[in-house]
Amino acid sequence: MERIIFTTDSSLVLAELLQGVRHDQLFVVADKHTVGFCDKLLEKVNWMPLNVAVVDCGEENKSLVSVARVWSMLSKRGARRSSILLCVGGGMVTDMGGFAASTFKRGMRCIYVPTTLLAQVDASLGGKTGFNLDGLKNEIGTFSEPERVVIDVSLLQTLPVRERVSGYAEMLKHGLLSDMEYLERLLVCDTNVPEREEFLELIKKSVSVKNDIVTQDPNEKGIRKALNFGHTIGHAIESCSMMRRENMLHGEAIALGIIAELYLSVREKGFPGEVYRRVREFIKRYYPTYPVMEHADTLYELMLHDKKNDRKGVNFTLLEDVGQFSINNYCTKEQITEALNQI
Amino acid sequence: MERIIFTTDSSLVLAELLQGVRHDQLFVVADKHTVGFCDKLLEKVNWMPLNVAVVDCGEENKSLVSVARVWSMLSKRGARRSSILLCVGGGMVTDMGGFAASTFKRGMRCIYVPTTLLAQVDASLGGKTGFNLDGLKNEIGTFSEPERVVIDVSLLQTLPVRERVSGYAEMLKHGLLSDMEYLERLLVCDTNVPEREEFLELIKKSVSVKNDIVTQDPNEKGIRKALNFGHTIGHAIESCSMMRRENMLHGEAIALGIIAELYLSVREKGFPGEVYRRVREFIKRYYPTYPVMEHADTLYELMLHDKKNDRKGVNFTLLEDVGQFSINNYCTKEQITEALNQI
Repeated sequence: MERIIFTTDSSLVLAELLQGVRHDQLFVVADKHTVGFCDKLLEKVNWMPLNVAVVDCGEENKSLVSVARVWSMLSKRGARRSSILLCVGGGMVTDMGGFAASTFKRGMRCIYVPTTLLAQVDASLGGKTGFNLDGLKNEIGTFSEPERVVIDVSLLQTLPVRERVSGYAEMLKHGLLSDMEYLERLLVCDTNVPEREEFLELIKKSVSVKNDIVTQDPNEKGIRKALNFGHTIGHAIESCSMMRRENMLHGEAIALGIIAELYLSVREKGFPGEVYRRVREFIKRYYPTYPVMEHADTLYELMLHDKKNDRKGVNFTLLEDVGQFSINNYCTKEQITEALNQI
Repeated sequence: MERIIFTTDSSLVLAELLQGVRHDQLFVVADKHTVGFCDKLLEKVNWMPLNVAVVDCGEENKSLVSVARVWSMLSKRGARRSSILLCVGGGMVTDMGGFAASTFKRGMRCIYVPTTLLAQVDASLGGKTGFNLDGLKNEIGTFSEPERVVIDVSLLQTLPVRERVSGYAEMLKHGLLSDMEYLERLLVCDTNVPEREEFLELIKKSVSVKNDIVTQDPNEKGIRKALNFGHTIGHAIESCSMMRRENMLHGEAIALGIIAELYLSVREKGFPGEVYRRVREFIKRYYPTYPVMEHADTLYELMLHDKKNDRKGVNFTLLEDVGQFSINNYCTKEQITEALNQI
């Protein structure tokens, strides 16, 4: 956890982290929205960033074009391995910027400042970088940790409610992977008016759940697959929505994936039905729905593309109980269709 | 060394390595020349490769365009992490294909079959992958080892003499980094008519010199920099030549870099002048020259871009004696110009 810094004033933290870094050796990547945060973030270092790559917002710009723009800035402006790339934004920016940093001269220094709840509790943690190819999520990427992740909860104050709800889906997943007490707190927390102190505690717990699992298995050979809970079906829904140029958020897709994979867990692993019903009800209340049955065949095709697959079929992480997961389960198309039907 | 397999019949080795791999899960990348080797290489697995990406020959095609072509084939044809990318070619193909494999779904299985002397004794070893950006060598890349490197010396029989001489420059470097006895054998070996048995022994020794150094420092934090001997100036010459669209080979540039950096070693580190003169004479006899003094300023600018640099200036590995190197030396523009003048 020592690389993760919690704060309510990231400009102070950055002033410390950037001590001794030469002005022209700091590089920034942000999107059109988060670039507006940069002046404030860097106000205590007393200079404006010289080298800024601004990419277009949205998952569809987590692309080779954006990565190439960052590489090009770094190369043209003389970045070195010892230079720093500061990635300011949601998971799109930290994933894509982290990939660019991990491959520029085979790896330069990198700091993330995640600005969305989703990025703070999930995307910026665990050292997975990447971008999308032909609509396939994170088809290209590396395992590479940034030097520091600065989690500033005050940045969430201006985050749209819909974005906050999206990030909350990953916290629900972390709740399901850890213990009933934490899950309980998540299920009674009103995501619309989170009390700041309480919310900070929930975030910290979520970060530690993810960090504990990743530390045990950084390269996803085994138990890290637990974190894919909800994501086999969730990613397929997200890809399907992206192909149709709809405006679905990652966490919105994952929330629906959690319903379906929790249903599979009840059926295949004896996960308690009562907890399933409560989680499903919570998601149904706060998250938009999606006509999954209209796209069931497409969704199945997309699942077959999932990175976790081998030749045995579509690979799922399922739960036996809260905090008890079982990796490498294979489900048939029929089972999957039945699960989709619960969404 | 267990990942490196020496053979005179790579089709036999591949038949063994590919046992159990499904036909449609083998992917091949080759260039327009080496693609002709593939049928023979795969004759003992009894099937023709289905998925082949062919890239244009030459260092200028070690580019993002080529990498993207490989990514696209892998993605469109349903490659998985457990699929194999077989890279058949010189360092251009193994570096670029290795990069594509190390980043596809954050890393798939990969086997190199280096077909040039340069790739066999250097490029395919040590886990550096990458491609060129805007004329800058290996500006983008990863540290990632293939699962196996199959070194088949019989493939060298059809290699043009000029290519063989180019690869020999890296062997000279390995000689300078190891011991006088090996260097002696290299300096008396006629590169035009290498006896096969003797040559195989020279190759094996070269591979072990490189492997020993890389194993101690895979991510180039310290002593691996020894392998950059000759490359600070050599890479600059190569980049300069590439910008001018000349047809210089990597090893030809490195041979000239060895002269200049050996001269710096004599001046700054007391490297024995007699050995310097013999190595210089050997290189002058077998390698084409280059008008370095006409491009001295450009070359210096290019050196400033070198990945090994930090803010202290141009970073050199120099030699105190054969087998005794000193990393992280900084030389001034004047010293470098004097060294260039010896080429």
